[in-house]
Amino acid sequence: MRTISRLSINQYTLRNWTIPQLLEGCAAEQIPFVALWRDKIAEAGLNETLELLDSTGIKVSSLCRGGFFPAETVELQIKNLEENYRAVDEAAAIGAEVLVLVCGGIVNHDLDRSRNMVAEGIALLLPHATQAGVKLGIEPLHPMFAADRSVIVSLSQANGIIESLKTPDLGVVIDVYHVWWDPAIYDEIARGSGHIIGFHVNDWVVPVPDMLNGRGMMGDGVIEILRLREAVTRAGYTGPIEVEIFNERLWQIPGDELLRLIKDRFLAYV
Amino acid sequence: MRTISRLSINQYTLRNWTIPQLLEGCAAEQIPFVALWRDKIAEAGLNETLELLDSTGIKVSSLCRGGFFPAETVELQIKNLEENYRAVDEAAAIGAEVLVLVCGGIVNHDLDRSRNMVAEGIALLLPHATQAGVKLGIEPLHPMFAADRSVIVSLSQANGIIESLKTPDLGVVIDVYHVWWDPAIYDEIARGSGHIIGFHVNDWVVPVPDMLNGRGMMGDGVIEILRLREAVTRAGYTGPIEVEIFNERLWQIPGDELLRLIKDRFLAYV
Repeated sequence: MRTISRLSINQYTLRNWTIPQLLEGCAAEQIPFVALWRDKIAEAGLNETLELLDSTGIKVSSLCRGGFFPAETVELQIKNLEENYRAVDEAAAIGAEVLVLVCGGIVNHDLDRSRNMVAEGIALLLPHATQAGVKLGIEPLHPMFAADRSVIVSLSQANGIIESLKTPDLGVVIDVYHVWWDPAIYDEIARGSGHIIGFHVNDWVVPVPDMLNGRGMMGDGVIEILRLREAVTRAGYTGPIEVEIFNERLWQIPGDELLRLIKDRFLAYV
Repeated sequence: MRTISRLSINQYTLRNWTIPQLLEGCAAEQIPFVALWRDKIAEAGLNETLELLDSTGIKVSSLCRGGFFPAETVELQIKNLEENYRAVDEAAAIGAEVLVLVCGGIVNHDLDRSRNMVAEGIALLLPHATQAGVKLGIEPLHPMFAADRSVIVSLSQANGIIESLKTPDLGVVIDVYHVWWDPAIYDEIARGSGHIIGFHVNDWVVPVPDMLNGRGMMGDGVIEILRLREAVTRAGYTGPIEVEIFNERLWQIPGDELLRLIKDRFLAYV
């Protein structure tokens, strides 16, 4: 696309940076969006974060994260819902249009029931999100995270939940790392037309050095990023594109250097 | 099922054992089947392997493995096909009804084309398999292996290839580790009725210590093995059930001790 006008930096791509470092670093590189994490906001303070967003003019593409709906007991389910309410409120406070949902893994050794609990949890959370003016974005994770992070492992599942709940305040966040392998991905992206509310880029390097923290920089792996980006565009998504890379090796690179590398790769491969 | 009459030990579950050790070990534990690997047969010698199979009375449930169809060039594709011919011949020689196919990863940065090359490669190999009296078993691998080991990542894809080729000499090998996460798995097992020709068990432990060599022992993880076994049975599969566990920690256990553990867990969880 040869412009960084849609570029967003997910905060954990620069794990070692605080929010002030991230916002000042992005401002220096004229990067228009960031995706923030709740733990980093807690560390920096909400007011300080708001002031820095205001002074730099950087927008928040999404807040990470809500979710983890399956719960062993009703008590835990309620506690989790309350935590999700706070996440929605925080997204509203920082002007993030989207709260990203990592839906949660298997509880009580029951995969089917855990999957149902995700749909139920989202339905319970939706009225609060609507009221706050925040959209909930289901992010299907790679099947290798099915046990412990997200029983929602395909765009097909996410589309199904969204279609069943019929509200403009629920959508899907598509991360290429999680979905690129899916033989149905282009059909499911088309099916997602009108409710795609986020798009994340990175790459799948071979061999993957680590399931969780071994994502690659765009261009270093096998994912057909441009093809996926074009499919998402055809499906109507024109919002920010987040670079979300968790990688031990990249975290060793000085942040400002890494930001310049991301810009170069974004221009070349996204 | 409370019997080990269908138990087969995949050789790499006891990686450190030679074929003589494996066959004598299994004979001592009255285990009726083994699945052998080509590199181990080469090491032991085909004649020695045949003599030991004869003297112990142990049957071979499958030979590992053929496949890796996607190739960068036509020359490499032909070379690979010849290697697959030899694998078929070896399966026939040791009386293995099934040659397991690990289909191969992405070549030339083209996922779609690589997937087509798998279907083409299988079609080219089938006449030789039919002539040799060996069935080809497509084993869909977990999507985390899509880049480098198998572009066939779901039972749906395997079923599709099998239905398109319409021959009793092609079937699917279902390994619980690779497919348990799939929301469509029970529908696809039912769709596979009549062409399921292998079933592998192990478990998915949390967290997975290693993608390739971090499989768990049955009962140590989250997979609903019994439910999957019952589904496969309803779909008509009554053949050997292979225990296939690649695990660095289990490889440290003395082989005869590990065999007894496998028997116990097989009786309890499969």
